[in-house]
Amino acid sequence: MATHSVTFQPEDKTVDVPTGMLIAEAARQAGLEILQPCGGQGRCGRCAVIVEGAGVRRRSTIRLSSEDVEAGYALACQTVIEDDITVTIPEQERVERRIVTGRSVRKVELPFPYDPATMQPVRVSQLHLHPPSLDDNVDDLGRLKHGLSELGISDIELPLPLLRSLGDKLRQADWQPWIAFEMIGEEGSGRARLMEISAQAFDPLGLAIDIGTTTVTLYLVNLTSGEVLSSAAEYNGQIAFGEDVISRIVYATKGDGLHQLSARVRETIHELLTRVQKRTGIVQEHIFKVLVAGNTTMIHLFLGLPPETIRLTPYIPAANRVPPYSANELGIEAHPLASVECLPGVASYVGADITAGALSSGLVDSEDLTLFIDVGTNGEMVLGTRDWMVTCACSAGPAFEGAGVVDGMRATKGAIEEVWIHSDTHEPTYRVIGGGKPRGICGSGLISLMAELFVTGAIDRGGRVNLSLDTPRVRTGNHGPEFVVAWADETETGKDIVLTNVDVENLMRAKAAIYAGYHVLARSVGVGLEDIQQFLIGGSFGQYVNVEKAIQIGLLPDLPWDRFEFLGNTSVRGTYMALLSRQAHSRVDKVSQGMTYIELSADNTFFDAFTGALFMPHTDMSRFPSVAKIWQDGNGDEVQDEQK
Amino acid sequence: MATHSVTFQPEDKTVDVPTGMLIAEAARQAGLEILQPCGGQGRCGRCAVIVEGAGVRRRSTIRLSSEDVEAGYALACQTVIEDDITVTIPEQERVERRIVTGRSVRKVELPFPYDPATMQPVRVSQLHLHPPSLDDNVDDLGRLKHGLSELGISDIELPLPLLRSLGDKLRQADWQPWIAFEMIGEEGSGRARLMEISAQAFDPLGLAIDIGTTTVTLYLVNLTSGEVLSSAAEYNGQIAFGEDVISRIVYATKGDGLHQLSARVRETIHELLTRVQKRTGIVQEHIFKVLVAGNTTMIHLFLGLPPETIRLTPYIPAANRVPPYSANELGIEAHPLASVECLPGVASYVGADITAGALSSGLVDSEDLTLFIDVGTNGEMVLGTRDWMVTCACSAGPAFEGAGVVDGMRATKGAIEEVWIHSDTHEPTYRVIGGGKPRGICGSGLISLMAELFVTGAIDRGGRVNLSLDTPRVRTGNHGPEFVVAWADETETGKDIVLTNVDVENLMRAKAAIYAGYHVLARSVGVGLEDIQQFLIGGSFGQYVNVEKAIQIGLLPDLPWDRFEFLGNTSVRGTYMALLSRQAHSRVDKVSQGMTYIELSADNTFFDAFTGALFMPHTDMSRFPSVAKIWQDGNGDEVQDEQK
Repeated sequence: MATHSVTFQPEDKTVDVPTGMLIAEAARQAGLEILQPCGGQGRCGRCAVIVEGAGVRRRSTIRLSSEDVEAGYALACQTVIEDDITVTIPEQERVERRIVTGRSVRKVELPFPYDPATMQPVRVSQLHLHPPSLDDNVDDLGRLKHGLSELGISDIELPLPLLRSLGDKLRQADWQPWIAFEMIGEEGSGRARLMEISAQAFDPLGLAIDIGTTTVTLYLVNLTSGEVLSSAAEYNGQIAFGEDVISRIVYATKGDGLHQLSARVRETIHELLTRVQKRTGIVQEHIFKVLVAGNTTMIHLFLGLPPETIRLTPYIPAANRVPPYSANELGIEAHPLASVECLPGVASYVGADITAGALSSGLVDSEDLTLFIDVGTNGEMVLGTRDWMVTCACSAGPAFEGAGVVDGMRATKGAIEEVWIHSDTHEPTYRVIGGGKPRGICGSGLISLMAELFVTGAIDRGGRVNLSLDTPRVRTGNHGPEFVVAWADETETGKDIVLTNVDVENLMRAKAAIYAGYHVLARSVGVGLEDIQQFLIGGSFGQYVNVEKAIQIGLLPDLPWDRFEFLGNTSVRGTYMALLSRQAHSRVDKVSQGMTYIELSADNTFFDAFTGALFMPHTDMSRFPSVAKIWQDGNGDEVQDEQK
Repeated sequence: MATHSVTFQPEDKTVDVPTGMLIAEAARQAGLEILQPCGGQGRCGRCAVIVEGAGVRRRSTIRLSSEDVEAGYALACQTVIEDDITVTIPEQERVERRIVTGRSVRKVELPFPYDPATMQPVRVSQLHLHPPSLDDNVDDLGRLKHGLSELGISDIELPLPLLRSLGDKLRQADWQPWIAFEMIGEEGSGRARLMEISAQAFDPLGLAIDIGTTTVTLYLVNLTSGEVLSSAAEYNGQIAFGEDVISRIVYATKGDGLHQLSARVRETIHELLTRVQKRTGIVQEHIFKVLVAGNTTMIHLFLGLPPETIRLTPYIPAANRVPPYSANELGIEAHPLASVECLPGVASYVGADITAGALSSGLVDSEDLTLFIDVGTNGEMVLGTRDWMVTCACSAGPAFEGAGVVDGMRATKGAIEEVWIHSDTHEPTYRVIGGGKPRGICGSGLISLMAELFVTGAIDRGGRVNLSLDTPRVRTGNHGPEFVVAWADETETGKDIVLTNVDVENLMRAKAAIYAGYHVLARSVGVGLEDIQQFLIGGSFGQYVNVEKAIQIGLLPDLPWDRFEFLGNTSVRGTYMALLSRQAHSRVDKVSQGMTYIELSADNTFFDAFTGALFMPHTDMSRFPSVAKIWQDGNGDEVQDEQK
């Protein structure tokens, strides 16, 4: 058997190995350790290395994109050596991740080439008026209107405070005032709302705000350059009154709960605004446009609309499409006459966050069949192309946000966010947000854990913990059968971190609801899930989910991985786009009106689809061929039994 | 010489008198007294009697209309007996007159046949909505909009408070709500502003308010029937801060003067509203439309607009045409979302009171050349027909409102409102508002007094008191030469009531400014004053002015008396018309835009015309032939001397 010379970088160690040896084994011979949390099954992708030369054969490239492969990446546990090669072991990914609270959102790029002349919703223009005289004694307002008519404005809306200061301001500006205005009404109607008259030139600013149930994100935007000057995110202050939308709605219906919740989110926005203002030194009075997205309940609470009917059958919101109101009316510390507008929603559980996401995800421009999903408390999803869209919301419950799970927590410091379990020993390896000791498990960690327990046989397809395994990690605890992820001495709390049978059942119901949503949407338009060309995942939850694991538990359909794309906060990004461009805004309006909403509680195929999905990955394993393969490898012919 | 039998009624006394005897003399023979305050010169008209039979010859019917003559009226001092007749002496007109304060305006008739279906600005309609269900889960606002679309409303403006209560109100009304709305924007635009949603039917109410510098008048109107339910008038509470517009403007520019003045007029409106509400028992929240007229300064103060530039050259108001604002914004205790709209003005001194007056006086419909004037602090006047109008304002000053005159006062209780002076003795007779002892002289009294002094020779054409008369009533007092109208023992104050030379000069300047206004307006369009077919006089001042006296001093041009018409408060009446009818409102808008405003301070013919009018009645006596005749009778050939 031929031997090949393998050199490892950056350590610069070389070993000679026979044809067919795994890179992982060669590294071991060179005295180097490559982490293999999944036990070398090619599932976790943590052993990826960079190979120079063509002398390898990749058995599996699972967890690697085609770009990765082209760039030379290979999984050390799945790649055999067939010639002399040099292998670079990347510096271990730093175990240091996002902490939502207080972090500043990274630099945001312009979403499209920005042409303020045609797109900008709020403009600042200088007027050149003739000073009045005895021969030209037109009133101040008439003079202003004449100047505005030269900008194509034939009909103005003039708030009373501005009328009251009109004369002084025109004279202070020596009849050459800078005017901030927003075009309103139909395109070409010539209607504008005036907001400011000033002696000085200034750039108008805008805010794009996404009010998430958990997190509020704010972009401060220069409306002339289109640039995001600063951004910030913070927990929604309403969290103190309930973690999910349902508990907020319940709170809102009691006493002055609505008022309190409304005030809380305003306070959060105020904090974010203060933060970006301190960073940038901008003047709040130069903020002339505020665009807000959020789920329907968040929008109701922000506007002070009673949300009760959202929660009660037949689930009717007060309004999906809300007219703009002034910053003054809504208590936002921008220019008091700034318009505050909420993007339109579609239904009680398909809100402006989804229509904004449909815009920023590119769904609205897609020729390919696309599924866009924003997973949070509910799985809100849209299936379609640029020409048609169907949408629904699955009441998944907050399990994937860490609620309803014994050691669940939000994706913040101390949360286990990814887990690998050794195929033989069932010993877990995990990654913790912030890098310290774990305090609990967040959504992505729960998905990862469930998938690993399932493929290693620690839980069965019905989600039951296999107590017969030869490891102390499976046991019967206070909550019944459970798996110990971290022992007390490893944890921040000094207590074991576990996943119980009940937790798994809750998570199964959540993923089943979401899968049933895909099914009903696809069926409603006569396509199969396998026909989906793009699967776009929005929301901060989606941003860190491991596709493979999500497929293994049946949360995502079994499609080639390169069809999945994680887009992060699609809501705030869509809001930013609509803030910059009247055309984009009007696109969202049209999208919201064109979407066909399917109310799942009124759809009798939903319950069957839900029940069918209450297995891992699904009752019908044939829908998940890639999972079937891995699972059969580990669990043999049990497949047939479960399928009956 | 033949004798004739004359019987006087109701006393039923008969005397025989020779042909050619005056009725007045016959009455004296019968032992009856007919008052002749003017000394039997046929000027005052106070000796009018009713003659049955044709046996008389009227030497003069001055002060009698042609209708009066047809009805048998004759002046006892100007009518000679030529046959047997019966004469009825009417009961002396009761000396009892309007007291503005606190009085209720008398029953107001509908100004035109009222068709609410086509005219009504605010409508209340019931919608019949389908309740929501799982199969029809349109949001509340979408459902409402669908219902409104059946009323032809395609675009709604929805104030935030209404959106906040929308869901509750629709459900309380069991999806059959009554909606109060106002159509806005261009006719046929389908735009409406929603104001109320209720489970009960109700009639929408409106307010027509005229904010006079002195008096505020309010009509409470049922907008479905068009009926004025009640009305009230009260002094403008701003009077405490200045009697005329200039002193108000000055006050407004100091400290928080503007705020105080604005609050004061609101308080006055509040008092009036409370009064009509108590009388009628209406619910203030059913008032959905408030329409306001007033001069430009009053409108500025009402809206809280700084009025300073109105007073300073080049006399520029902040706005002549003001958009509507809500009752809530303006602090009017109607429905908080009611629209409060001010009728449009034309210039700093031609305000909404004039445009409203042009409507209600009928000028806007007139085919005949018409002059409409509203005399107050300023003489604001419009000359034209339904097809064209020119307008100006003469800075007459407040002399005719009693200011700038030693014993001047407003037309209220205790004011001398009409005076007659005996041709020979120069003893005055006067009428007092309220019938008690006099306290001073109001505008109509001043006109009457000046005219009488002039035609009896007590003052000359230049306004100088003739100290050579053989009566203690002419004398030199503290203010120089003066005429004593009432001795101290006749007065409420215990002091003489006088008219001084200086007073006369002030009044001359005021009347000269107004006359110069007529002149400039007529000249600007190439007509003569004699071409004016209708001379319409609005304002509470005008309501009680004696035409003959006003012509004698040159305040009104020398036209046949039947061309003059006194219309009272044309401003509130025009406001009422525009409140009832969108068409009338839009008519006022068009009129205000179509009027050509002539700024007299920029017109170099004005000063000459003013100077020429600084005589009684005018330098050029030939412009006042009727006055020339009377004056020549009393003063002989002096005419030629004065004319030079």
